[in-house]
Amino acid sequence: MHSSDIEPGLVVILYPGLAGPLRRKIRDRLESYGGEVTAVEGTGRFYLEVRGEVAAIRSLVVESWSGVEKVISLGGEFLHTAADPDRGPEGVEVASVRLGAGSFSIIAGPCAVEDEQRALRIASSVAAAGADLFRGGAYKPRTSPYAFQGLGDAALEILQRVREETGLGIVTEILDPRDVDKIAEVADMLQVGSRNMHNYSLLKELGQTSIPILLKRGFASTIDEFLMAAEYILSGGNSSVILCERGVRCATATDEVVLDLGSIPELKKRTHLPVLVDPSHGSGASYKVPALARAAATVGADGILVEVHDQPEEALSDGAQALTLDQFEELVPQVHEIRAMFEGHISGVSDDLVSTPGGEDR
Amino acid sequence: MHSSDIEPGLVVILYPGLAGPLRRKIRDRLESYGGEVTAVEGTGRFYLEVRGEVAAIRSLVVESWSGVEKVISLGGEFLHTAADPDRGPEGVEVASVRLGAGSFSIIAGPCAVEDEQRALRIASSVAAAGADLFRGGAYKPRTSPYAFQGLGDAALEILQRVREETGLGIVTEILDPRDVDKIAEVADMLQVGSRNMHNYSLLKELGQTSIPILLKRGFASTIDEFLMAAEYILSGGNSSVILCERGVRCATATDEVVLDLGSIPELKKRTHLPVLVDPSHGSGASYKVPALARAAATVGADGILVEVHDQPEEALSDGAQALTLDQFEELVPQVHEIRAMFEGHISGVSDDLVSTPGGEDR
Amino acid sequence: MHSSDIEPGLVVILYPGLAGPLRRKIRDRLESYGGEVTAVEGTGRFYLEVRGEVAAIRSLVVESWSGVEKVISLGGEFLHTAADPDRGPEGVEVASVRLGAGSFSIIAGPCAVEDEQRALRIASSVAAAGADLFRGGAYKPRTSPYAFQGLGDAALEILQRVREETGLGIVTEILDPRDVDKIAEVADMLQVGSRNMHNYSLLKELGQTSIPILLKRGFASTIDEFLMAAEYILSGGNSSVILCERGVRCATATDEVVLDLGSIPELKKRTHLPVLVDPSHGSGASYKVPALARAAATVGADGILVEVHDQPEEALSDGAQALTLDQFEELVPQVHEIRAMFEGHISGVSDDLVSTPGGEDR
Amino acid sequence: MHSSDIEPGLVVILYPGLAGPLRRKIRDRLESYGGEVTAVEGTGRFYLEVRGEVAAIRSLVVESWSGVEKVISLGGEFLHTAADPDRGPEGVEVASVRLGAGSFSIIAGPCAVEDEQRALRIASSVAAAGADLFRGGAYKPRTSPYAFQGLGDAALEILQRVREETGLGIVTEILDPRDVDKIAEVADMLQVGSRNMHNYSLLKELGQTSIPILLKRGFASTIDEFLMAAEYILSGGNSSVILCERGVRCATATDEVVLDLGSIPELKKRTHLPVLVDPSHGSGASYKVPALARAAATVGADGILVEVHDQPEEALSDGAQALTLDQFEELVPQVHEIRAMFEGHISGVSDDLVSTPGGEDR
Repeated sequence: MHSSDIEPGLVVILYPGLAGPLRRKIRDRLESYGGEVTAVEGTGRFYLEVRGEVAAIRSLVVESWSGVEKVISLGGEFLHTAADPDRGPEGVEVASVRLGAGSFSIIAGPCAVEDEQRALRIASSVAAAGADLFRGGAYKPRTSPYAFQGLGDAALEILQRVREETGLGIVTEILDPRDVDKIAEVADMLQVGSRNMHNYSLLKELGQTSIPILLKRGFASTIDEFLMAAEYILSGGNSSVILCERGVRCATATDEVVLDLGSIPELKKRTHLPVLVDPSHGSGASYKVPALARAAATVGADGILVEVHDQPEEALSDGAQALTLDQFEELVPQVHEIRAMFEGHISGVSDDLVSTPGGEDR
Repeated sequence: MHSSDIEPGLVVILYPGLAGPLRRKIRDRLESYGGEVTAVEGTGRFYLEVRGEVAAIRSLVVESWSGVEKVISLGGEFLHTAADPDRGPEGVEVASVRLGAGSFSIIAGPCAVEDEQRALRIASSVAAAGADLFRGGAYKPRTSPYAFQGLGDAALEILQRVREETGLGIVTEILDPRDVDKIAEVADMLQVGSRNMHNYSLLKELGQTSIPILLKRGFASTIDEFLMAAEYILSGGNSSVILCERGVRCATATDEVVLDLGSIPELKKRTHLPVLVDPSHGSGASYKVPALARAAATVGADGILVEVHDQPEEALSDGAQALTLDQFEELVPQVHEIRAMFEGHISGVSDDLVSTPGGEDR
Repeated sequence: MHSSDIEPGLVVILYPGLAGPLRRKIRDRLESYGGEVTAVEGTGRFYLEVRGEVAAIRSLVVESWSGVEKVISLGGEFLHTAADPDRGPEGVEVASVRLGAGSFSIIAGPCAVEDEQRALRIASSVAAAGADLFRGGAYKPRTSPYAFQGLGDAALEILQRVREETGLGIVTEILDPRDVDKIAEVADMLQVGSRNMHNYSLLKELGQTSIPILLKRGFASTIDEFLMAAEYILSGGNSSVILCERGVRCATATDEVVLDLGSIPELKKRTHLPVLVDPSHGSGASYKVPALARAAATVGADGILVEVHDQPEEALSDGAQALTLDQFEELVPQVHEIRAMFEGHISGVSDDLVSTPGGEDR
Repeated sequence: MHSSDIEPGLVVILYPGLAGPLRRKIRDRLESYGGEVTAVEGTGRFYLEVRGEVAAIRSLVVESWSGVEKVISLGGEFLHTAADPDRGPEGVEVASVRLGAGSFSIIAGPCAVEDEQRALRIASSVAAAGADLFRGGAYKPRTSPYAFQGLGDAALEILQRVREETGLGIVTEILDPRDVDKIAEVADMLQVGSRNMHNYSLLKELGQTSIPILLKRGFASTIDEFLMAAEYILSGGNSSVILCERGVRCATATDEVVLDLGSIPELKKRTHLPVLVDPSHGSGASYKVPALARAAATVGADGILVEVHDQPEEALSDGAQALTLDQFEELVPQVHEIRAMFEGHISGVSDDLVSTPGGEDR
């Protein structure tokens, strides 16, 4: 039933009573862009089912064509990210940790790497408390050019030391397509930050590698756009992509963003990719982080990305949202306990979802 | 070609290969809610065209029914507000001013009526400068219960004096359905504020009267919702409704809202009702008001609603956005001049729009 | 340290070098509105501390006064809703259920009361499954005047039957200040819906009663505005107010709104009022509801308000987001189990919060 | 009065009654990051005025420090973009056109360069109609990797031909910092699109050149963030930056974005950089474009960037918003006429603004 033989990608609804020559003109134009068109006669109007190569036609604005009333997309756009109802999630392996294959993973560390002693101190603490991977920014995207931009190359050396000393795999952000090789020497996973989710040059470059990519949702991006950003990487040949919800900008939010936890069941339904939650950027306030981290575990996320600092008040960036080492240590068993409790229910939900008729997406 | 005989209100697209009994079940259910259903066989799937009484069916969530892939609405929901391609706008008469029938009207005055002397002083100034109607709040909807709530009944007496002394028609806000008679004794037009656009009890009450209503767009409402709010009044029997764009809340706005001037050509295309712009609430900052008022004239609005105060710094509400008397006096000829210049172009645009094939709306 | 003797409500920062007579003019004007002003001389500029009656001054736009650079509000606006660090939450009693005093409460039922048999069937099922109160709309605020508006008075009789047969307390929405008496005869708690959070006439009317009020957050309202809406009711004399987060409109949301779960720790920190979560309106999609309901339990909410229907596909409103009876039955033990697990942590968090220096909040 | 000797960049308000040692700790910490701190004693509390190097301190989250109630920024962050009250705008020269020095400029062309004949046909038409510069995308940022991505290098050759044949200067988008040299050979101005406004690697790279940059506002960015993005380029040494408002994403918008025309008076007040408006992306619908283009002229913009296509229905991207050649030809004299009419008023407004006491901005 899912064969492309019978499912059109688009249905074009014409205005009632549209004259034959105009119908033909629309049909011809659709075919000139590669579509296979079947006209279906309704009562008073025609429907054009378009099969075959519809990607080019989606680029056009067929709805503005004279004689066209509506254009309905019937899915099939998410070639690489769409969930496959016939198999479970494989997950993505980063360092020796497999994310998204059933367990709940924790990536922790400071917003930015500030100095070696501090980075090592935080890293050994979060490792002892149960973190699976270490995060720490070397290159920081900051709204102001006068704010701390990260230590850059010096931070990469520090991250290298962290990996050697603690054994934790390293996650760090990449801002520039020219930095891939340099950062990949040290990092086990490259993070594409929220501000770069629409940076398609960077996404295409990362699609040419086989390095695991942590792709954060744009702070003003829809789920469709988020999955399309992942398609950029996957269609390039790199299948190791992990998604991360981190809050969306909203006029009524207290600290700019609202963490969209409802996106987690939606992403788990629509894609086979692992999905993490960042409760730190998703709230902007450390006192909310433990609650939202626990919530992430209950909605079916595959883990969290959380900012931890030994002295948040002195952090050179994002101090207001960092957990202390003690707070982090207290949080880890909570999220694992909650995850264990609801494991059955969460996968139960997924099972239901993939059996929806038609299934792929809304 | 526009007859309701041949135009379905809804098209229900079924999943490909859906079994006959399931198709029949969906069809029967649609018919049980009053729809007349015609099944159209496509290649591999069926389309159900639904005619007749579709309002009840729109209330259901047909898209969630098992076997249904998409539900397409083909318009026809805006029974009373929709533009009629066969006739021009009639406008709405308020006091002896006809708004929306070609001229550009100006409603001016303070946010709130504060005292009689001040109200008379402002009113006689704006009258002299060319205002068509006077605005001034007696009952104010304020975020805080501890903020100035308006003078209430005492303000109504002052507004009565303003009308007697200046001859200007009066526009004032109504908050409570129980106040209709009391306010209508003094006011020539009742304003429904942005916060009450979704107050359907109030809208229904106003639909039972024949008083002109100035309906402001909700600060977080779509154009569809805005027109539906007008439908509440019009379907009750009151055809004297004037719409007013006043800015929508947006995460990236400097003062909370962004004035949506693109909504004016859209509303002029979709409805026959007059459309005003409120550049005062639409900016929150008096230095932006003249620019946005001029812009309102260029995009085809039928007038503006603008806050004017003799001493904005002492205004008990919204002082930051009020024009001084001098600024208002300077603005009036500007908007009329610009309107005169582009009158042809603006109506020309409208003419084009109503001849779009199919026409009614998007 | 919290005495009003030493804490100003406002600090007005003047421009550097402002001349004495201008300083005096600003001071005098602040005092004329009831403030007590102390001038503090900085290096090059003055700061005016304003004590006493600052509510009227907050209504002014002091920041626009000539010579004023910034106006800083130091809190104290939330007279009745502010959390009291010296005592724990008392909760609000509805029927014989005390909400917000430690336990996790569940209010369940259909969006709208559709017919007696169905209402009784749903009510007895949710009662058996563990619901604490029954919800069901008699008067429905609908975007379109042509959509099902609720059964009205007939629904009130049905709700009366539900209470008699099941013993469940009744929660139903009020849209019109004239309906208070009529609805209060049947309902144990009146709901103010999201669209009416800014309907101050209704809020004031409810402040004159002693009926418990379930106040839902406006779909485009900030937390400050939400608490101020509660202040309208509390300052009128009615202290039985329960807050409910139900999602905020956001450009990037899949179904219009994003459920703002980060608002729960914020509200628990800032107010002593009970706080519920509505995962049904907060997602718009039933498959997300169980996940978000569980999340509500982990972030510290005092309960949930959830839509349940025996045949969601036939619901006359909001069918897409209603749980089936079976899904609800499965959900109840989950939220209680999770709540039991984290009870300690959640109150622990609260304890920390109220001891912040200075205390009230941002 | 504007000397940095007397104006602090920050004022830190401490909690009332804060003990001396804690005050000293805060002071010391501020000084350790480069600030010069003066303590001012109020009634019951202290204010710390921070002068000197405050950029590093802004990076910290001083508001979260124990004992700190509020941190007030008094401006001075916009080092290169801030308007200079002592001199008028110089504008930026692109090809032989000076933008932003008083005249109203028009940049027109197709969204994407599709083929040479079409590009030349459109270019010669818009040149004849009065366009000042030609726009056309070679590399297109598209949400879907399967949509038309632009002709790439082939388009650059076509743009070269356009310049030779029509004499129009060329504006084209840059997506990747590695493409600067290649594109700069052909283009007279490089466009940074809305999706890349936060792409700081790209901005930094462009700051190292002396090529004019057309910086579009991020579709979910505030004015502060927009100006800070310009600071990235200017602080790198490239002073030729032109800003462009193009609509911000908003939950209530009809086609995703609302064109924020109120941002134009704000930007003209706050910065000396030229400011354009893009009514095409700012509406998403060609029937709104002429109205919004005229509005741009009335609010004080220095010009427009508008999409024009000879056959919008066949455009490979953004066809729904492109003007036809005829529509463009009709528009050009309108915007110039309106601009001529209000030239006096618009600069008059600017004159007022720069004389505000204190002056720089809100």
